[in-house]
Amino acid sequence: MKPELGCCYYPEHWPEERWAIDAQQMRDVGLSWVRIGEFAWGRLEPAPGQYQWGWLDRAIEILAAQGLKIVLGTPTATPPRWMLERHPDMLALDEQGRERRFGSRRHYCFSHQGYKQSAAKIVELMAQRYGHHRAVVAWQTDNEYGCHATVRSYSAAACSAFRNWLKIRYDSIDQLNVAWGTVFWSMEYRSFDEIGLPNLTVTEPLPAQVMDFKRFSSDQVVSFNRVQTEILRQYTQAPLIHNYMGRITEFDHFAVGSDLDIASWDAYPLGFLEDRSDYGEDWRARFARQGDPDFQAFHHDLYRAVGRGRWWVMEQQPGPVNWAPFNPAPLDGMVRLWSWEAFAHGAEVVSYFRWRQLPFAQEQHHAGLLTADARPAQGLLEARQTALEIEQVGPLEHKPAEVAILFDYESAWAWETQPQGQTFDYFRLVFDQYKALRQLGLSIDIVDKSSACMGKYKVLFIPGLMSLDERLTEALKRQGNHLFMGPRTGSRTPHFHMDNTQPQLFDQAYQQRVESLRPGAGYTTELGSIEHWFELYQLPQALVKLRTVEGYPALISDGQLSYLCGWPDTELARNLYTQVLTDAGVATMALPAGLRVRDTASHRFWFNYEASPVSFDNRVFAAADLLIEPLNS
Amino acid sequence: MKPELGCCYYPEHWPEERWAIDAQQMRDVGLSWVRIGEFAWGRLEPAPGQYQWGWLDRAIEILAAQGLKIVLGTPTATPPRWMLERHPDMLALDEQGRERRFGSRRHYCFSHQGYKQSAAKIVELMAQRYGHHRAVVAWQTDNEYGCHATVRSYSAAACSAFRNWLKIRYDSIDQLNVAWGTVFWSMEYRSFDEIGLPNLTVTEPLPAQVMDFKRFSSDQVVSFNRVQTEILRQYTQAPLIHNYMGRITEFDHFAVGSDLDIASWDAYPLGFLEDRSDYGEDWRARFARQGDPDFQAFHHDLYRAVGRGRWWVMEQQPGPVNWAPFNPAPLDGMVRLWSWEAFAHGAEVVSYFRWRQLPFAQEQHHAGLLTADARPAQGLLEARQTALEIEQVGPLEHKPAEVAILFDYESAWAWETQPQGQTFDYFRLVFDQYKALRQLGLSIDIVDKSSACMGKYKVLFIPGLMSLDERLTEALKRQGNHLFMGPRTGSRTPHFHMDNTQPQLFDQAYQQRVESLRPGAGYTTELGSIEHWFELYQLPQALVKLRTVEGYPALISDGQLSYLCGWPDTELARNLYTQVLTDAGVATMALPAGLRVRDTASHRFWFNYEASPVSFDNRVFAAADLLIEPLNS
Amino acid sequence: MKPELGCCYYPEHWPEERWAIDAQQMRDVGLSWVRIGEFAWGRLEPAPGQYQWGWLDRAIEILAAQGLKIVLGTPTATPPRWMLERHPDMLALDEQGRERRFGSRRHYCFSHQGYKQSAAKIVELMAQRYGHHRAVVAWQTDNEYGCHATVRSYSAAACSAFRNWLKIRYDSIDQLNVAWGTVFWSMEYRSFDEIGLPNLTVTEPLPAQVMDFKRFSSDQVVSFNRVQTEILRQYTQAPLIHNYMGRITEFDHFAVGSDLDIASWDAYPLGFLEDRSDYGEDWRARFARQGDPDFQAFHHDLYRAVGRGRWWVMEQQPGPVNWAPFNPAPLDGMVRLWSWEAFAHGAEVVSYFRWRQLPFAQEQHHAGLLTADARPAQGLLEARQTALEIEQVGPLEHKPAEVAILFDYESAWAWETQPQGQTFDYFRLVFDQYKALRQLGLSIDIVDKSSACMGKYKVLFIPGLMSLDERLTEALKRQGNHLFMGPRTGSRTPHFHMDNTQPQLFDQAYQQRVESLRPGAGYTTELGSIEHWFELYQLPQALVKLRTVEGYPALISDGQLSYLCGWPDTELARNLYTQVLTDAGVATMALPAGLRVRDTASHRFWFNYEASPVSFDNRVFAAADLLIEPLNS
Repeated sequence: MKPELGCCYYPEHWPEERWAIDAQQMRDVGLSWVRIGEFAWGRLEPAPGQYQWGWLDRAIEILAAQGLKIVLGTPTATPPRWMLERHPDMLALDEQGRERRFGSRRHYCFSHQGYKQSAAKIVELMAQRYGHHRAVVAWQTDNEYGCHATVRSYSAAACSAFRNWLKIRYDSIDQLNVAWGTVFWSMEYRSFDEIGLPNLTVTEPLPAQVMDFKRFSSDQVVSFNRVQTEILRQYTQAPLIHNYMGRITEFDHFAVGSDLDIASWDAYPLGFLEDRSDYGEDWRARFARQGDPDFQAFHHDLYRAVGRGRWWVMEQQPGPVNWAPFNPAPLDGMVRLWSWEAFAHGAEVVSYFRWRQLPFAQEQHHAGLLTADARPAQGLLEARQTALEIEQVGPLEHKPAEVAILFDYESAWAWETQPQGQTFDYFRLVFDQYKALRQLGLSIDIVDKSSACMGKYKVLFIPGLMSLDERLTEALKRQGNHLFMGPRTGSRTPHFHMDNTQPQLFDQAYQQRVESLRPGAGYTTELGSIEHWFELYQLPQALVKLRTVEGYPALISDGQLSYLCGWPDTELARNLYTQVLTDAGVATMALPAGLRVRDTASHRFWFNYEASPVSFDNRVFAAADLLIEPLNS
Repeated sequence: MKPELGCCYYPEHWPEERWAIDAQQMRDVGLSWVRIGEFAWGRLEPAPGQYQWGWLDRAIEILAAQGLKIVLGTPTATPPRWMLERHPDMLALDEQGRERRFGSRRHYCFSHQGYKQSAAKIVELMAQRYGHHRAVVAWQTDNEYGCHATVRSYSAAACSAFRNWLKIRYDSIDQLNVAWGTVFWSMEYRSFDEIGLPNLTVTEPLPAQVMDFKRFSSDQVVSFNRVQTEILRQYTQAPLIHNYMGRITEFDHFAVGSDLDIASWDAYPLGFLEDRSDYGEDWRARFARQGDPDFQAFHHDLYRAVGRGRWWVMEQQPGPVNWAPFNPAPLDGMVRLWSWEAFAHGAEVVSYFRWRQLPFAQEQHHAGLLTADARPAQGLLEARQTALEIEQVGPLEHKPAEVAILFDYESAWAWETQPQGQTFDYFRLVFDQYKALRQLGLSIDIVDKSSACMGKYKVLFIPGLMSLDERLTEALKRQGNHLFMGPRTGSRTPHFHMDNTQPQLFDQAYQQRVESLRPGAGYTTELGSIEHWFELYQLPQALVKLRTVEGYPALISDGQLSYLCGWPDTELARNLYTQVLTDAGVATMALPAGLRVRDTASHRFWFNYEASPVSFDNRVFAAADLLIEPLNS
Repeated sequence: MKPELGCCYYPEHWPEERWAIDAQQMRDVGLSWVRIGEFAWGRLEPAPGQYQWGWLDRAIEILAAQGLKIVLGTPTATPPRWMLERHPDMLALDEQGRERRFGSRRHYCFSHQGYKQSAAKIVELMAQRYGHHRAVVAWQTDNEYGCHATVRSYSAAACSAFRNWLKIRYDSIDQLNVAWGTVFWSMEYRSFDEIGLPNLTVTEPLPAQVMDFKRFSSDQVVSFNRVQTEILRQYTQAPLIHNYMGRITEFDHFAVGSDLDIASWDAYPLGFLEDRSDYGEDWRARFARQGDPDFQAFHHDLYRAVGRGRWWVMEQQPGPVNWAPFNPAPLDGMVRLWSWEAFAHGAEVVSYFRWRQLPFAQEQHHAGLLTADARPAQGLLEARQTALEIEQVGPLEHKPAEVAILFDYESAWAWETQPQGQTFDYFRLVFDQYKALRQLGLSIDIVDKSSACMGKYKVLFIPGLMSLDERLTEALKRQGNHLFMGPRTGSRTPHFHMDNTQPQLFDQAYQQRVESLRPGAGYTTELGSIEHWFELYQLPQALVKLRTVEGYPALISDGQLSYLCGWPDTELARNLYTQVLTDAGVATMALPAGLRVRDTASHRFWFNYEASPVSFDNRVFAAADLLIEPLNS
């Protein structure tokens, strides 16, 4: 399939006479997609029940007239001010009990039934009107679920919905008491109506309650989204999409994705480096204008899984943004490099956010392809170059990877609920591993724990998975390929009880204790160090493949299954994974720090994320440069 | 005019028999002014409507009998406990929605009409009683407006007043919607009554709304103060004063000052170094006992402008204070040095806070000129020495400076509202520039944007001014002298829309993008580096006077007007300003780091802020020392 | 008396068929005590007024059948959920005004009368049932008063109780106004009903009000505990105990302890090192698996004083815990070492928390003597070894120390209320001194200011005591031995007025000023440096025994009384104390950093807290090792 480019456009922000000029220019640059509508509720229904469709009808016709394919967004992330008159209690409350008020966006609690109905109504009206329009060939639901920490609400609506959710899950209060372990501190409940939300407790609340609240909150997002998809399916055959964000783990994207046709995400490499990287100030300074070399790739692979193979970048950073602690400009070439990194990972479309910088409101410092005064910005030049190169490179097909990592949202909730050590974070655990494997030159797939295709990988990595139930253990054992687990994999039952004997991964092995480790106080092995976390096992000597200098088992393996007893540092990860991959017949390369490689069925793509040239294998890669070569060399 | 000394005194804190002794001693030390009354409401009106003037009558007579001139303060910063019975909703709410309760001071919302009337009443009664008293020769309104973050309140009273303020400003809700850009995220309002205060929103609120809230909040201070000045003018001819603080930018001091006759401020060099300096721990350690070498000078120059030439230090730190994170003692000599620094900048009066240390309540660790047990403290000795030196030096007259910096409170609000990078702060931008110029040996004026006298300076610096409207642009162009602008100067319309083409400072120049820069990730030029902030312009080659190593324009100039495209580091500032000043015919000196100089019409004052001796120009300045020499050398 | 071992056990958490196995195993390991019941309210009274004693009857019989001695805990730290139906306003509010809700433990306000009655009821029922049981030979009241910052509540119940407390203390509002110094900022009250709690004020509240609120809050704990002890005394002759925590100063443990027979505390050396040590990251890393070498010893000595000689460790860390920022495993040997350190300080019993790790709820990562699957953990092995060694060593008797430090909870409140510098902390001041003395090889007693036995020490240290009233001054003067005071000792009246002339420790000495000092900006003497705090005195030359390089007095002494004018660093402390002790005839040793020594009447105990071997006096101590030798060598 040949990659395509697009952009995000807000006709309601600009004079109507400008629309045709913009549409023409988009086409000239080489864009074929345009997303519109997702924040326009106020202009579609300026007062309750008073609809104004004319402007949107005309905007769609003008864009369509240029042959642009339209993604139409449902506007439910930005209910108008009058909605609060209708539903005064629709706002979320934060963990401290404060209302999260009107005046920006995402000001609704996912559990509020009244708002959900109002949202359904506007979606239905839009679907009726545009569901069969020839140019509206995809739909986006809402916008960036979970952005601004909006998944979890501590409102009365959420409390009531949580009780109902628990009734269904546990049937009787006695079963809940057992599952949660309420006996611990006399926390037993006599009825579901006694249960509150797990915030503002004197000290930490029950972890099983917190886990259920997180599951519930995720389910509320799924349910909110499903209301929309069920309506849309009645009126349109077009694919349904949502635009996810980077490193948001508060809801299960696989679950939301199962109601949609395509996954997409909003890729802001520089913003995300600044506000959600774990790698410290030196790392941020080094990649300040390029972004973390693996953060985009990881999410590309993750959302390819969420989209069951179909995925886009719905919003691609085109220049400086406005919302991170620091907002520098990308190095020249990076917008093109990011675009191609997405295509190399299988993106169908890369769509730039936004077409034109808006000189007012919250995001006035967010670059567009055009400047606010409609001159070409850096992004436009690089988008045009990318469009030309797409024509040269031609169609790309996905090449299945030899290794995969299992990613699981519930596990993120689990270790956030009870990290045991302040540096234990599930996303980082997985991402560290992804980064180490990618630095070995691998193309990587990400899989969900319900994925049917785990067996096709030479090595399947399963770090930190909260629960290994029987079904999954059985499935994994049937696979026949190498499983690489730990730390913390399978260490909790579904009800969040500690499970240090299950799933009996190895006969005669049992866990003696676990530790969280302060920086610099880890364990040493001859292949590198263990940090953050360590599990001490007792087991037969023959299974121990690596020991700490104290003699504690660090790597356990019986050939088919390996278990790593702690969190490896960079050196240990590199050495261990190289060994495991080599044993499994997977070729590795020791890439220089900022260089990355990704294969499609037909091409190998090289990406240099360094701000300076890098040499590898007798070749020199310029700063922020990209090399595309036919695969098979 | 010959400088004078004074002190702050609280007769209500001490036994009546002590008053005459204190008054006599003040006179003996060489003080001629005494401020009283500003926290005494509880003793003047111990119960609603029950007044007790006798003790104040007597205190005034006793002080007057020693020839002391009295500044009488209105007590409205400390309404008594019973006021809350009368106005239960008079308290401010903070940004998190919490009441700011009784039990210290400044516990009122500026927008509460009921409290404003109660304040007016006590002011009127005091004015009636003492407005014509021979010894009450100046009045102070309230105390330290803005201290303890009290300008902005999120109360119901504030919300209601804000709506009224907006109605006047915008006339129609449609105009407000356009001005604020509410269309952005469907934030449009149908009436003014739908508008809330910009706190507790899910993500950042509309910047134009925030700006208006800040303007409104500043106006409420002006209005509260004006109620008092209008009453006082009815009963007294004495000058009206307010005592401002250091680095408080939440209200427009020029606007408050325009209703008063004299500006004054409360100068706490060591406290301010500890709790409001940007220059890091090494800097704080180096000047821990001396204070920042420029902080006092900057405020002296600022408040001279606010007072339209007439200004005082109403409270001068005389020893250790109680309220900063650390409260060391000044080096011997510093109280004297600070006093003379004020006089060198034109202060009419320096008044020490407080006469005697109080052995109870919140400030019991705040030094006075006397210790709590009435022995002479460090401050008394240095005050006496200063009094003697005043006699030797004689009258001083202000000498207008050759350069000025434009300071603008609205610009502080603008970049606080939308800094775009976490290290961008308007006060620091201006203060960095002031410091660099002062290190070049200059005496500097500060001007307001409405000042009529901008034209008299050889170089006028205008860093970071939010809006350059046509009127101001015209005025500046007429001046004929050198204007040095940037970064960010003129980059917003009054409604806070980005303005990257206006005010067309240079023909054919346009802004391509702006960036905020993380520490260590700036741009380099041959004269030094740019940090925090950078603007990329496209313009004719001939206008570019300095470039970064990448070739980006760093300094743009057409001879009369210069524009600096980023925030200069110390080195770049020194080199650039030296060049610009030299070109403009202003002589500079490269002073050692802690040495400062200030000229009056007749004298040159040297101040060594270092804790060790400093050599300059074949002279040695002792630690914490002062040298006064006739000007003309 | 021969030391004994015990453990904490929760029969309600385990199947009834397990109880006998556990009891047998406890006995086999060598434990003789078992604490039960303190969180079991929900199982004793699952619905209001419906009691279920059967399971507890059976549990007690099963434990007793093995000869185990039982400590029975009152369950008032964990009221069941239904209690909130009965007392909806029983929850505490935090300083920000937020409810502290159900869902963990300690969810009650000490001032709530209704809850106090409900607590009394369950205590009475338990006392009636088990007060004369042969195996219930000690009682514990509640659990860890003050844990999770629960002493101070800002609820309506607390406000009302505070007003009543003030009425009793001050009799008239006028006396309160004088005592508090409300005149300062017009804060005068006309009646007790106008007084609020000192939270959420605009800036800092009145320190005298804060002090009274802290005294009141402490008294509420005493009163809550006394309700229980008065009931228990009616039904049992068994000793009453409470289990205190480490470094909790919000209530007066001496006052609570005076109603009890034995003091005990919960000793978590690794958790406390992580979450309440002042000594920085390097220190934490160095002792990460051993704990601070003095923290346990200090609390042992403190609680020996609180228990008037009788004290236990009620909960001893047996392995990794779950609640600190990092939770590593102790080095092999440390559980044994900690146990012996307690016995060396006179503990009657060391009881491990908990018998068996619980695989669910908040503490599932907290190690027990058994793992969750009932295998032996590190703690079990070391407990068994300790039990064997107890038999070998035999009975131990306390040997009174030659030096003592006076510790005073009110002083902790005082300097927390008005630290004057952000690094001034009373606990640290005392603990620094304790540590320095212990590093000199001393065994130390801690005394309360009401202690009658101050005179028996060769040197009595009194750092930072808030008030030296006449009674105490007289008592101290009568002692005849060396008093070592300062800094800040005696610097406030009981009403928290500054007192810089009293108690006239030295004739003709007066305080000129005090300073708080930023790190690195202290004063130097030839014996070391002063940091954090310095007081400048004027006094006769002959009294000055040490001066700073500026010539300021640093140590004042008249032979019997010494006063240190600042906070000494490690070097100054070591040098000064060595000199003072030598003069007083107390022998010292300069121990290596991690080695400690403690004497009983018959033995000397050596403890090496380092993770590596340490040499001293021609002997080598292995890492984490313990040496017990007959005293008298």
